Amino acid sequence: MSKLFFTFEGPEGAGKTTILKMVVSKLQEEGKKVVATREPGGSIIAEKIRQVILDPSHLEMDPKTEALLYAAARSQHFVEKIKPSLDEGSIVLCDRFLDSSLAYQGIGRGLGIDAVKSINEFAIGNRLPDATILFDIDPQVGLDRIAAHSEREVNRLDAESLAFHQKVHQAYLQLADKYPTRIYKIDANKPQEEVFQSVWKIMIQLLN
Amino acid sequence: MSKLFFTFEGPEGAGKTTILKMVVSKLQEEGKKVVATREPGGSIIAEKIRQVILDPSHLEMDPKTEALLYAAARSQHFVEKIKPSLDEGSIVLCDRFLDSSLAYQGIGRGLGIDAVKSINEFAIGNRLPDATILFDIDPQVGLDRIAAHSEREVNRLDAESLAFHQKVHQAYLQLADKYPTRIYKIDANKPQEEVFQSVWKIMIQLLN
Repeated sequence: MSKLFFTFEGPEGAGKTTILKMVVSKLQEEGKKVVATREPGGSIIAEKIRQVILDPSHLEMDPKTEALLYAAARSQHFVEKIKPSLDEGSIVLCDRFLDSSLAYQGIGRGLGIDAVKSINEFAIGNRLPDATILFDIDPQVGLDRIAAHSEREVNRLDAESLAFHQKVHQAYLQLADKYPTRIYKIDANKPQEEVFQSVWKIMIQLLN
Repeated sequence: MSKLFFTFEGPEGAGKTTILKMVVSKLQEEGKKVVATREPGGSIIAEKIRQVILDPSHLEMDPKTEALLYAAARSQHFVEKIKPSLDEGSIVLCDRFLDSSLAYQGIGRGLGIDAVKSINEFAIGNRLPDATILFDIDPQVGLDRIAAHSEREVNRLDAESLAFHQKVHQAYLQLADKYPTRIYKIDANKPQEEVFQSVWKIMIQLLN
C-alpha cells in the first residue's frame, strides 16, 4: 500500500512550515492531489480550539487541559479533513500531529508519553502517520530564527523557556529512536535549499 | 472527614440549577462558606471551552471531540476553582460534573462509559464528588419545561432528539446503580418546593 499520510515535526523555528509549502508546490507540479494542513487547526471547530490553546493571555492553562485540547482539536481535524482526504486518495501533509503532543505535553510538560498517547488513541484510534519527517535543529537556533522573523505570530508556547524547548528537542530524538521505521530525521540546521532536497528525496522514495 | 464536594446531575430541565441556587442561599444563611459553580465552565479558560462546546452552529462536532473538550474544561475548572475552594474548606456545589460526561458522551453518544471515564481520570485523577444529587425526571417533562422557559439559552445539546435524552436518562439510572453510596436519586417530577426539601434533607445529613 502506498504511503499517503505524512507529518512534519520538530522544534519551533525548524522551518517545517516553509519546507512543507515547497513540497506541496513540487508535488502539485507533478500532478499529484495534495492536501496541506496544520495542527492545531484544520477545520472550523479545530481552529476555534486552536485559538483557546494558543491565546498568549491563557497563562493559567493547566498542562492536562492543554493536552486534552490538542487531542480534541486532533480528533476533529482527523474526522473532518485528514480521513476524508486520505479516503479520496490525496496525499496529506500535516504540519505537526501526534508526535507534537508526545514531545510537548508528554515530555515538555512532564505528563508522560504513555498518558498522552492514551488520550490520543481515544481521539484518533491507532491511525499513525505513514511517515514523519523530523526537522532536527538546535533549539537555540530555532528560537533565534523565530526572533528574526517579526511577522510570525508569537503564541503561548513560543514564550516558554529555552530549557523547555531543549526538553522538547530531546523528546523528539527519543521518539525517532522509538519509531525508527516511521520517523525520518533530517538536519534542519542546514540552509533551506539543502533541507528541502533532503525532504524531497525521502518523499519521492516513499511515494514510489 | 466531612463531605464538601457536591455535584447536581440529571437530564435537561430537571431543575438542578434553580434548586442549586436555593441550597446555596440557605447554606449562606446558616453561615457556611459556599462556592457555587457549573460545568462546562467555572474559569475564564473553561468558559471559553464551553463556548466552543455549546455553540449551536458547531453541528459537525465529532462525539470524541466533544468528550475531550468536556474533559479539558473539567481539568481546568478543577485546578483553578474546585480544588482551591475545597482546600480552603468551602462547600462546593457544582452544576454538572463527571457523571454528565459518562451519561451524555459515554452512553448518549455511544462512546462507552469506560473510555470516557479514562480520559476524565487523565483530567482530574480519581477525585470523585463526595456526593451527587441525581434529579430524576421524565425526559419529556424536562424538555417541556425548557420549552416553557423561553429566556433560557438553547444550546447544541438541547437540540438533540427525545430519543437521545431518553438514553441519557437511562444512563443516569445506571450510574445511580453503579455508585449507590455516592449518588442520591430524588424525584424531580414533583413541585419545586418538595424537590428542594428532598435535596436539603440530604445535604443536612451529609454535612453533619
